[in-house]
Amino acid sequence: MNSIERVEADTVDLMRGLGRSATLAAKRLARATREEKDTALLGAAASLRAQTDAIVEANAIDVAAAEAAGRPASFIDRLTLTPERVEAMAVGLEAISELDDPIGGLMAEWRRPNKLKIERVRTPLGVIGVIYESRPNVTADAGALCLKAGNASILRGGSESYHSARAIHGCLCEGLRAAELPEAAIQLVPTTDREAVGEMLRGLDGAIDVIVPRGGKSLVGRVQDEARVPVFAHLEGICHVYLDRGADLEEAVPIIVNSKLRRTGICGSAETLLVDAEAPAGHLEAAVAALLEGGCEVRGDEAAMAVDPRVKPASGVDWGTEYLDAIISVKIVDGVDEAIEHIAEHGSSHTDCILTECYGTAAHFVARVDSAIVLHNASTQFADGGEFGMGAEIGIATGKMHARGPVGVEQLTSFKYIVRGAGQIRPN
Amino acid sequence: MNSIERVEADTVDLMRGLGRSATLAAKRLARATREEKDTALLGAAASLRAQTDAIVEANAIDVAAAEAAGRPASFIDRLTLTPERVEAMAVGLEAISELDDPIGGLMAEWRRPNKLKIERVRTPLGVIGVIYESRPNVTADAGALCLKAGNASILRGGSESYHSARAIHGCLCEGLRAAELPEAAIQLVPTTDREAVGEMLRGLDGAIDVIVPRGGKSLVGRVQDEARVPVFAHLEGICHVYLDRGADLEEAVPIIVNSKLRRTGICGSAETLLVDAEAPAGHLEAAVAALLEGGCEVRGDEAAMAVDPRVKPASGVDWGTEYLDAIISVKIVDGVDEAIEHIAEHGSSHTDCILTECYGTAAHFVARVDSAIVLHNASTQFADGGEFGMGAEIGIATGKMHARGPVGVEQLTSFKYIVRGAGQIRPN
Repeated sequence: MNSIERVEADTVDLMRGLGRSATLAAKRLARATREEKDTALLGAAASLRAQTDAIVEANAIDVAAAEAAGRPASFIDRLTLTPERVEAMAVGLEAISELDDPIGGLMAEWRRPNKLKIERVRTPLGVIGVIYESRPNVTADAGALCLKAGNASILRGGSESYHSARAIHGCLCEGLRAAELPEAAIQLVPTTDREAVGEMLRGLDGAIDVIVPRGGKSLVGRVQDEARVPVFAHLEGICHVYLDRGADLEEAVPIIVNSKLRRTGICGSAETLLVDAEAPAGHLEAAVAALLEGGCEVRGDEAAMAVDPRVKPASGVDWGTEYLDAIISVKIVDGVDEAIEHIAEHGSSHTDCILTECYGTAAHFVARVDSAIVLHNASTQFADGGEFGMGAEIGIATGKMHARGPVGVEQLTSFKYIVRGAGQIRPN
Repeated sequence: MNSIERVEADTVDLMRGLGRSATLAAKRLARATREEKDTALLGAAASLRAQTDAIVEANAIDVAAAEAAGRPASFIDRLTLTPERVEAMAVGLEAISELDDPIGGLMAEWRRPNKLKIERVRTPLGVIGVIYESRPNVTADAGALCLKAGNASILRGGSESYHSARAIHGCLCEGLRAAELPEAAIQLVPTTDREAVGEMLRGLDGAIDVIVPRGGKSLVGRVQDEARVPVFAHLEGICHVYLDRGADLEEAVPIIVNSKLRRTGICGSAETLLVDAEAPAGHLEAAVAALLEGGCEVRGDEAAMAVDPRVKPASGVDWGTEYLDAIISVKIVDGVDEAIEHIAEHGSSHTDCILTECYGTAAHFVARVDSAIVLHNASTQFADGGEFGMGAEIGIATGKMHARGPVGVEQLTSFKYIVRGAGQIRPN
């Protein structure tokens, strides 16, 4: 039976039980062959396709509840599953099965003068706890990526996507069974009790090796306050585009519009446009006009408001807000150094971009902006593991530790050193 | 003035002040050239030599107090500085100056089909908090390694080495002044108040990016309970040597003796010998005899006690004890799988070794033992960054995150992606 039936149990005991099961499953997964893992992924993809109707039906319960609760359209959109979106999940699992198996891979090897041979070899991290919003597809993506990297996962999706996540998780379990891998390799937290998240952040008695949070401000604050285990700080994407005095306007405007509007609900979407006060006349106007024409709400400082009556006033809060919507804040800055300062103060170390044809200014910017991804003359929407050629990702890490930027299969691993000797002992 | 004069200030305010100074210094260090950093290191080495007498004098105060407090000989030995040991510190700083500068180094670069060029570039971590025992030389080593990697450091040495650390820190500051780098690049916590450690573990208001603890059990427990920032879990080295049935006794015995006795006070020293119950007659006896003859106290299970009347009984505590002394525990196990189980249960994921000529058994062992360093037919005392050819190290990390095994200059860095475009926007 699937563990998601045990919703009645006391949350602390329940969660620790998940932790123990995950630890055992992780031991088995660490030795799983590529074939076993891929069999599970392809089996899960087949099951998703076979269960499309049931998944869409389960999703309808979540969507109806979210609509009744008056959730905004962008939330409903991220929550909603269609047969096409289920198919996209299945294709995603197939793509993950095609990635190279990172485990056991030789990262480096060298021989010492005393003939000791040292190898650095990829190993799994162990047990990964994933805490995410009400985006049902993350259940499939995150579980699959963790599995491919030989890790057991404990998934806690947003409570408003619970029925959807549960249906998807059932398909993942079917894949695991087909591969004769333990079902506890991918566990979905079988309760919407918020205390379950607290237990995960405390590490489930040492069972969880790392937490991957994917969510907004409230989750950020909670993780930062409570986490007692390492966190891949995938928190917010407050991404900036800086339009420098040296920009080529014809190239720059499409990048600004694309950075904000291609998709507004992803973390690589731009939230703030910084415009150099010394930019040629018309640059600020052109950028603001293009955004407004693209259907974007523009919130600006006084100089930006002077450009167009449709520009609304930005408050202090705007500079630190991830809108995840067709809204952008616009500020005039006194050159590249004030842009860098603004980003250091208000950014989230995710993705920031400079638009300029002056390569000296660009070099200054990319050296000093300490974000996971710093772009020159390209859209912030490229902040994506697939676009980097790194395959599917579990998110874009904004911390400095272990994994930074796109977190794909390779970033979900650790390593160890294997030292091969022939009787060497160490003198003095 | 040196910040170590401010001992009167309230500890919380004092520590947060250190944090703010470190954050500012880290910004400057991130842009420091190799020449600036090396000038500081060589200046510090010169100052250590010039101040040898003063350092040894300051150290005498610490040593006298430790002797009066009845500290054991091994503690006094690690605490004591001689002119030779001061010279060794200076040589250590010079060696660090000769290492390549990791910062700005290109770790990888590739071009995407859309012509975006992606570079992965090494960056500093930021501010590193180092918490260590009363080993004065760590002050120089840790401060220098952090500096070379472009990081500001906040050093908190054991309170019984305070006068020594302060004298050494003065030399580091002299080097920083000579290079016109901020003195706050390397700060020594100017108080022996234990609450200072608590403040560091809470991250000093977000100032500390990572904590590197180097110490014994009590520090371990405290760090695990209290740390609210990432930790390079350099905690204990409970290292095992497993003597397999397939071992070559002539090769194995010297490795066992060297693993335990070459130096007993380092983390790579073996603490437990596991002997295969199916090892040929005489193997256990030979290993135990060699250890006893080498002056090692042997604590064994019943089978080991039967070998020699000098073998004392091991209690349950022995299997999880880092002796840091000439003591070893010996246990008979039922083959390689029980050895692996014992290591999983009692080890510290630091360094473990198998002695066997059977390469199948060795492959089984190195694949399944999840320690940072797994050796085959070589002494555990090779667990050392220098012996790995990685240069000086701040410790051997036993966690799975970011840095694992020897933590040298490269491991004290992070990275970012720089994406160079020519107007690329992302379609769909």
